Amino acid sequence: MSRSGLSGFPEWSPDLRWVEQQLVDRLRRTFELHGFAPLRTRSVEPLSQLLRKGETDKEIYVLSRLRAEEDGADPDGERDDRLGLHFDLTVPLARWVVENAGRLTFPVKRYQIQPVWRGERPQEGRFREFVQADVDVVGSGDLPAHHEVDVALVMAEALGRLDVGDVRIRVSHRRLAEGFLHGMGLPDPAAGLAALDKLAKIGPDGVARLLELAGAGPEQSRACLEFAGLRGPGALAAALDLAARHGAVTEDVTLGAERLAVLLAAADDAAPGAVEADLSIARGLDYYTGTVYETELVGHESLGSVCSGGRYDDLAASGTERYPGVGLSIGLTRLLSRVLGSLVRASRPVPTCVLVAVDSEADRPRSDAVARSLRSRGIPADTAPTAARYGRQIRHADRLGIPFVWFPARGSEAEHEVKDIRSGEQAPADPAAWQPPEADRWPVVVRN
Amino acid sequence: MSRSGLSGFPEWSPDLRWVEQQLVDRLRRTFELHGFAPLRTRSVEPLSQLLRKGETDKEIYVLSRLRAEEDGADPDGERDDRLGLHFDLTVPLARWVVENAGRLTFPVKRYQIQPVWRGERPQEGRFREFVQADVDVVGSGDLPAHHEVDVALVMAEALGRLDVGDVRIRVSHRRLAEGFLHGMGLPDPAAGLAALDKLAKIGPDGVARLLELAGAGPEQSRACLEFAGLRGPGALAAALDLAARHGAVTEDVTLGAERLAVLLAAADDAAPGAVEADLSIARGLDYYTGTVYETELVGHESLGSVCSGGRYDDLAASGTERYPGVGLSIGLTRLLSRVLGSLVRASRPVPTCVLVAVDSEADRPRSDAVARSLRSRGIPADTAPTAARYGRQIRHADRLGIPFVWFPARGSEAEHEVKDIRSGEQAPADPAAWQPPEADRWPVVVRN
Repeated sequence: MSRSGLSGFPEWSPDLRWVEQQLVDRLRRTFELHGFAPLRTRSVEPLSQLLRKGETDKEIYVLSRLRAEEDGADPDGERDDRLGLHFDLTVPLARWVVENAGRLTFPVKRYQIQPVWRGERPQEGRFREFVQADVDVVGSGDLPAHHEVDVALVMAEALGRLDVGDVRIRVSHRRLAEGFLHGMGLPDPAAGLAALDKLAKIGPDGVARLLELAGAGPEQSRACLEFAGLRGPGALAAALDLAARHGAVTEDVTLGAERLAVLLAAADDAAPGAVEADLSIARGLDYYTGTVYETELVGHESLGSVCSGGRYDDLAASGTERYPGVGLSIGLTRLLSRVLGSLVRASRPVPTCVLVAVDSEADRPRSDAVARSLRSRGIPADTAPTAARYGRQIRHADRLGIPFVWFPARGSEAEHEVKDIRSGEQAPADPAAWQPPEADRWPVVVRN
Repeated sequence: MSRSGLSGFPEWSPDLRWVEQQLVDRLRRTFELHGFAPLRTRSVEPLSQLLRKGETDKEIYVLSRLRAEEDGADPDGERDDRLGLHFDLTVPLARWVVENAGRLTFPVKRYQIQPVWRGERPQEGRFREFVQADVDVVGSGDLPAHHEVDVALVMAEALGRLDVGDVRIRVSHRRLAEGFLHGMGLPDPAAGLAALDKLAKIGPDGVARLLELAGAGPEQSRACLEFAGLRGPGALAAALDLAARHGAVTEDVTLGAERLAVLLAAADDAAPGAVEADLSIARGLDYYTGTVYETELVGHESLGSVCSGGRYDDLAASGTERYPGVGLSIGLTRLLSRVLGSLVRASRPVPTCVLVAVDSEADRPRSDAVARSLRSRGIPADTAPTAARYGRQIRHADRLGIPFVWFPARGSEAEHEVKDIRSGEQAPADPAAWQPPEADRWPVVVRN
């Protein structure tokens, strides 16, 4: 599917690119129906911005000007003012909000569909360039909790419209998880959280080893793993019970559980079954401070999360002004790498609906005129590349999946004819009036 | 208009991004109507690929992994295997065609709308990241000349659909120009061509100085400037006459003039006035070998060319197989930097058509249900961010340009009401049936 010779930099063939574009159009439409406005930020940020939250687990690509290197000139500016490619769309959003705060009406609702880059080692077989589709709501000063429900529901709807099967949005809350680890007496709750985040990847034994390295004893370790194993309707009650049994009910545990309960109830009211609790969700080193989300594609759980995010209260700030936000990000390339070509494909590899045959190069203007007439009525049309014999022109259309071949009238008395090359049926037709069956006009996304 | 704090990296506000996206949709539609299939290539190429044609006047951004730097590790691989951001979409296309040749049906017609990067010095005030919209036709072995007409006409149509005013596509031919410079006895015809290319930028005196540096005498210089000044219907005849007067009629001059004449006649037949000869067009250090194109936005000539390209016979090759191509590229960011916000704008800054008021946070689910009902019928709707008093909720809608505010029924007996906040008119309405005037449903692109 990926045909790029460079590992980590996928490229779709034009027919799959067509499908990707149609799916992106559906995302746009859904986001816009919910009042999210489109934004595109530049691809680069100063390193100081990308590293603002201190440690990050994202590998960054740094840029340098080839000519500056050749001239032996100093790199542009100070080390931290050098430019890097953004590794997500949330850090650029935070920068953009602060930069434009005076011109914005809060809460800002924006969506953004763009490539991001991670400077991974090539051999790891991970994506180094991929497209994300994000929605975020950012407030000024505060941000009402109902937006944490809204972003989950818009993403559930958007993913549903992609026609790639069922998705399940799973949520937890940073304060609940961190509060629990703290209440359990873990010496380094952050390291504990990073360990729990790896549950799906390395399994309970692997996590237990990491917890041990983070200073947890066997009982603490068992309790943490039990916590992370809680999922579904009874998860919150079980977590509070577990915390009570271990004397780990801190203020954060109570508050986190409360907020999560409110979110789950509201989501269940609006879209039953779309969102469920899963206390293994931690979102590692990310900048989240509240609700955190991950999303499974049912039947493709091994793919990992196809849509993740959370609430971040401290990412954007300027002077005394804070801009708390909440958002979710679809890993579109990861999702499509699984479904493009296997689950869904384009009904044909080129947009063309009609190939207009060419009798001879001298007659090409006549064929061009037919194609122009068809296009003017919204029918994708092309003229044959060469005036080969008709059999070869039909084979060319067939190879490209073009359903119709048009034979222009030879002389003013003669009639135009159009042939459906799938059925072989051929009939007289008028370039100014003929219509293809609506289903044939454009390629469509079909399920395999 | 550009609100990014980083010079050369423009960012549109969401309302202008909306317009950009609508214009991109129009380009896509036009390209697809002409049978061009969509392609997106990765953003990076190995430096060896970017520098394959030897000298380039494009500044290149080279990538390095921040973590590799921190580890003090060697940069990935050899110097020429390092990755750089592509500076156009033609070099990646050539690489992609060679890589996928076995799977492709030729001629390949593809369009591609993506950002490209140029590692310019920040102070020059030039774009360092900008979007190009390209169409190309690439053949295997040979490429019929009629495609040189096709790409010009599809671009004329595409630019016409942007509603940004009249455009004029100007064409010349490399072999005509180089042949003339050669026939004139210039010691370095390539340097002469690069000099002529600067005519619009530095004027005749500047070009004369550059020609002198390239070894041209005063008479040669005068003839070259006369050649570059030829434009419009009589240009080709005048060029042949000029060449004859100076004994500069080489085989290339004859052949280039012939091909250009055929192209101009065919273009004039299909779309009178869209394409004209302009012998100052040279396309500097680019990889073109035949027809070259530039495009003026009438009334904005100082902007420079908004759509350029040409025929390249030697860019893509693999073993003994050659893949000649011809294509044109719209400098979308450059074009939009002039027209966005001044010539055209969005009719409102957010997609939302209806803001559903919220009585109290406890009543929010009722308002959410109204919004869901509207969206399910394709009407962009949002609920008010807070349950402030109605006056404030209406002001919030007004600030965002949202035309309608919806007041949900309070109780089962009461009626819903909807208010057009522009006219103040308020009327009962059913969430399952009400329709906004079609012109209000989505924002539209309007001319100022």
